Amino acid sequence: MKRFFIFIFSLVAYSCWSQMPLQETFNLMPWPKTISAQEQQFTLTPDLSIAIDGPKSNRVTTAATKFLRRLSGRTGLFLKEGFPSTINNRKDASIILTYTTVSTLNIKTDEAYKLTVTNNNIHLNASTDVGIVRGLETLLQLISNTATTYYIPGVSITDEPRFVWRGLMIDVSRHFHPVHVIKRNLEAMAAVKMNVFHWHLVDDQGFRIQSKTFPELTDLASDGLFYTQEQIQDVVAYANTLGIRVIPEIDVPGHASAILTAFPNLGSKPGYEYSIERNSGVFDPTLDPTNEDTYVFLEQLFTEITPLFPDDYFHIGGDENEGKHWDENKDIQKFKAAHNLKTNHDLQTYFNIKIEKILHKLDKKLVGWDEILTPTMPTTAVIHSWRGENEGLPKGGTLIEAAQKGYNTILSNGFYIDRMESIEKHYLTEPIGNVTLSEEETARILGGEATMWSELTTSLTIDSRIWPRTIAIAERLWSPKTINDVNNMLKRIQPISFRLEELGVTHIKNRDVILRSMSNNQDISSLITLQKVCEPLKIYARNKDGIEYQTYSPFTLFADACVADAPDAVAFNRLVANYTAAPTTKTKTEIKKYLTTWNTQYEAFSALDKNPTLNTLEPLSKNLSVVSKTLLDVLDQKTISKTAKQQFTESLNILKQDHVDVEVAMVNALENLAKFPK
Amino acid sequence: MKRFFIFIFSLVAYSCWSQMPLQETFNLMPWPKTISAQEQQFTLTPDLSIAIDGPKSNRVTTAATKFLRRLSGRTGLFLKEGFPSTINNRKDASIILTYTTVSTLNIKTDEAYKLTVTNNNIHLNASTDVGIVRGLETLLQLISNTATTYYIPGVSITDEPRFVWRGLMIDVSRHFHPVHVIKRNLEAMAAVKMNVFHWHLVDDQGFRIQSKTFPELTDLASDGLFYTQEQIQDVVAYANTLGIRVIPEIDVPGHASAILTAFPNLGSKPGYEYSIERNSGVFDPTLDPTNEDTYVFLEQLFTEITPLFPDDYFHIGGDENEGKHWDENKDIQKFKAAHNLKTNHDLQTYFNIKIEKILHKLDKKLVGWDEILTPTMPTTAVIHSWRGENEGLPKGGTLIEAAQKGYNTILSNGFYIDRMESIEKHYLTEPIGNVTLSEEETARILGGEATMWSELTTSLTIDSRIWPRTIAIAERLWSPKTINDVNNMLKRIQPISFRLEELGVTHIKNRDVILRSMSNNQDISSLITLQKVCEPLKIYARNKDGIEYQTYSPFTLFADACVADAPDAVAFNRLVANYTAAPTTKTKTEIKKYLTTWNTQYEAFSALDKNPTLNTLEPLSKNLSVVSKTLLDVLDQKTISKTAKQQFTESLNILKQDHVDVEVAMVNALENLAKFPK
Repeated sequence: MKRFFIFIFSLVAYSCWSQMPLQETFNLMPWPKTISAQEQQFTLTPDLSIAIDGPKSNRVTTAATKFLRRLSGRTGLFLKEGFPSTINNRKDASIILTYTTVSTLNIKTDEAYKLTVTNNNIHLNASTDVGIVRGLETLLQLISNTATTYYIPGVSITDEPRFVWRGLMIDVSRHFHPVHVIKRNLEAMAAVKMNVFHWHLVDDQGFRIQSKTFPELTDLASDGLFYTQEQIQDVVAYANTLGIRVIPEIDVPGHASAILTAFPNLGSKPGYEYSIERNSGVFDPTLDPTNEDTYVFLEQLFTEITPLFPDDYFHIGGDENEGKHWDENKDIQKFKAAHNLKTNHDLQTYFNIKIEKILHKLDKKLVGWDEILTPTMPTTAVIHSWRGENEGLPKGGTLIEAAQKGYNTILSNGFYIDRMESIEKHYLTEPIGNVTLSEEETARILGGEATMWSELTTSLTIDSRIWPRTIAIAERLWSPKTINDVNNMLKRIQPISFRLEELGVTHIKNRDVILRSMSNNQDISSLITLQKVCEPLKIYARNKDGIEYQTYSPFTLFADACVADAPDAVAFNRLVANYTAAPTTKTKTEIKKYLTTWNTQYEAFSALDKNPTLNTLEPLSKNLSVVSKTLLDVLDQKTISKTAKQQFTESLNILKQDHVDVEVAMVNALENLAKFPK
Repeated sequence: MKRFFIFIFSLVAYSCWSQMPLQETFNLMPWPKTISAQEQQFTLTPDLSIAIDGPKSNRVTTAATKFLRRLSGRTGLFLKEGFPSTINNRKDASIILTYTTVSTLNIKTDEAYKLTVTNNNIHLNASTDVGIVRGLETLLQLISNTATTYYIPGVSITDEPRFVWRGLMIDVSRHFHPVHVIKRNLEAMAAVKMNVFHWHLVDDQGFRIQSKTFPELTDLASDGLFYTQEQIQDVVAYANTLGIRVIPEIDVPGHASAILTAFPNLGSKPGYEYSIERNSGVFDPTLDPTNEDTYVFLEQLFTEITPLFPDDYFHIGGDENEGKHWDENKDIQKFKAAHNLKTNHDLQTYFNIKIEKILHKLDKKLVGWDEILTPTMPTTAVIHSWRGENEGLPKGGTLIEAAQKGYNTILSNGFYIDRMESIEKHYLTEPIGNVTLSEEETARILGGEATMWSELTTSLTIDSRIWPRTIAIAERLWSPKTINDVNNMLKRIQPISFRLEELGVTHIKNRDVILRSMSNNQDISSLITLQKVCEPLKIYARNKDGIEYQTYSPFTLFADACVADAPDAVAFNRLVANYTAAPTTKTKTEIKKYLTTWNTQYEAFSALDKNPTLNTLEPLSKNLSVVSKTLLDVLDQKTISKTAKQQFTESLNILKQDHVDVEVAMVNALENLAKFPK
């Protein structure tokens, strides 16, 4: 314990250094707790070697080996030693990894590390092997170069996370994502020090985990797309090696179409024809909480499944049950009356409490979406706060309330990355804010999770929906609260995001796959120009009422190639804001460069052999060209004819509308530029 | 049987049509046996539906469902029906799949199909479900479009393969390739109607298949990179669904470093320190054929492993055993003398015959590389012909000899895609040629296999080494011998190759991943220009003596981004050949376009922030610019100064040399252009 206090003290000492200039120099994400720089540098050569000084740990051996491959891959260095050594065999190694314990992952795992880089060697020290895994990622982020050499700059870093729960949820029910898709995203999570993978395994659209007790679940309700138990164990072990806990979610009692397709007798509406859901939304099929068979089934299922997941926590969903089928079932109504359960919420709490007892027997702690937060719910449950202003709750949702009421709690409200909102919004979602909480209450706020619901994504596009925005969320949950400069974050995230490619993440490369497919492998430069200014419609507007897209609809469309924070639109918006505030020739030149590109793309687009898919982009391409041409004339102080003005307005109005499920993300800046007095 | 003859008759009837014009119209690969076109077209609309008329077949259901996803993904059509129906539920479906039997895959599997497309519907008929799988791929290749509609042109196709064994071998020992890499390549194989996946599971660099009897094999000799038995079964089932047989290879008695790392007592040199090999080449560790324990071990291993592979065939390698350790072991020498085994070849045959008996007991037929073709080898073995002129054998190697001697045989000589030679060479490798063979002998030539040895490839690049060249090999093995027009093939292969992307194949998209990594995510346009004219060194020159690259060396270099048949170099070579033969203004203009691109790329390259990796490309970039600039002046009939001429020669000489393991693939054309009289 004494050792711990010394550690804290040294952190405080370091943080006296001014941090801001280093944030300009180094591109680290999440930004470490404290960092100082020295005028030293460790040069990377083929002689680089790693020695491990600690108890045998698969985590460290794996991470150190991957470190060597990634360093070699990035630099092209032909390292003489392809594997780490033990300290006894290699006391003179250039990188020494020192730790004392091999951690069992839980919410108390110590992830702190200390990294020191000098001219001659690199020391990475941690209490646990997980700290080493975290520190190696920092070290990779530090790789720098001159024209003639690769090196690691001289730094001293002491680092530890602000929150113990830094998660990513992936929904594999709405669209299934095979093991390798999960694994590459686990790698990316580890690269930005996230430590919880929440696996949303069951929903209306499919039951995705093999049950040997109830094979009907996947035989009848998965379309053949599910994980075998060996695959589950493989993923859990893979995550564990990366220092990532895995929390499974079996969503009950609502979102139960898949379960009830296999076992209709457990449903709340006798005679209802349950089937795998192909649309998105909130549906009526619900387990019958008054039927003892429901609990027998769930206890058997959980008894079979929980051993696959060594983590202490188990997520039961519990969200979005509107209770329609409960209202329509007279026996359930009678049951409510007999048990003095006034509302469906009370009935669901009755259900939750019974489930909590089953999980308790299995040595698991219950996690549920915040609908489970009812007066009689035991405080052993963890409240997963997801609802917020959109769902009629106060901003920040139920997080603070849950902590104050004595629950451990995690935040996802503000971290719904499937809403396709800007990175800035997620980055500035501060879990605690300025609320004054007691120490105990603060400790109950475990952290948060980005949520990747997959109604509108397949394995082709899921990476571009998760990354890079989740890097910003990872920083929010790891770094000190004071690290919140958006512009600096946007600078730092660039190299961190693109380097995820070395882990196999497809967020960048799959854009061109979609555009090549759309264009039948013609020149896609004009399509890329359009892609860089268009964003998919936000907040589920793309999937109005959940019926525009079915699970088997095409997700190979222009909107699927587009991403949040369309890069050229974001850059242009900033330029125009600067220009209209304080015009300079330099800014004007940069603005004109964009306008010229947007003007000329139409010529290239027009040269393409058309097909019905490409044709849908014609209005975008053409009107962007018209608007840009006019604005170039405006900036060049040419006279704009009345016809041209009229055409400009018409074209701008067309660009303001949604096209093929995207929006032109700098349309306001285009309009502002036209208004700007010459 | 009668039905079969009618079928053959109709094939003959169709082939009276002239084929050549249709090869210009349709981009089918492999080209079908017979095809005719009608003035009809089946328009693709959201109402498209599929009905299955045949016995329950997972192959057909899966293929039809994937067909719908791929069609929808390519066209953007929101199909109303996301799954196929049975004929009883959907007699009026637009696509009807009719077959009578579900095939057990073997070398007698009937893969023939008949496809008829009219204005109103599409009929795909086959004897077996595998024929339906093949025909659906043809149908996908037929998808066409106008500016306003997608359609399938009216055709009648009757098709069946020339050879029954059309394989791809993937070496997963030198570099391990995880399940998903194998699966996407299986999908690509099926897309071009290949039907054998030969899985090279064991070599000096790693033992890649889990043995529960001998866990030491993967514990000690795989670096943790291997397939579990469940994964093996998963891949085999996946392949089976695609109509692909899986042949495992356990290479013995040579290439045994991995096996002997786990079980040194089975080695031929007592006291030798066996370890996982990190280099490439032919090594000495060899199983001891005089030790009965060797056979006990192999029998136990094969008894455990063979049930995972339902196919009739089992590959034992048997190649490249130089017998050095046998010569060095006195007991082995004594054994040879005692058993009247004069040469090491005789000793290996002794070994092979014992292995053959073990496999026979396990109901497996032995396949081996052509070194096993010795006088006493039983003709039950299948000879895998790989050696040719490079190995001191006649062109075409041992294929014909083996067939004449009574062995079934398959060809890989000429199909070594890892040698990075041109597609033309592989395409024109005709297995039988003009040799006159009896009907029995001809029937013994089962087909061939492309071989993807992976000394110089990781999962990042393996797809670009396999595809698109393997498509040409697939056509060689499926289509009639007369289909051999290289230019027409090169035209047809373009859309077939790029559409492999929809199956997740990474042969196109991973180029930019490498170039982004090299350039630290700067503008890669100049690097792409260079990539399009450079080819990796051929025939293992890149890995001189197998020691330039170790298994853990970086394969993220410029040479890894480059591919065989560098597209712009190939196009330029053709242009210059045409121009020097018969100059036209049009050709000259096209030549100048390339030269201008090559001249200006240096400016963009120079603008990049340099690092040691990028710097290695400086000589390429700079000298290509110098040479191109001078040639532009030559073509523009400008006077070339003496200095410029000298500089041209110097630069050309530099371009003629290897740089960073690539060669500039149009350097001769550049030289010829300079010589061309103005």
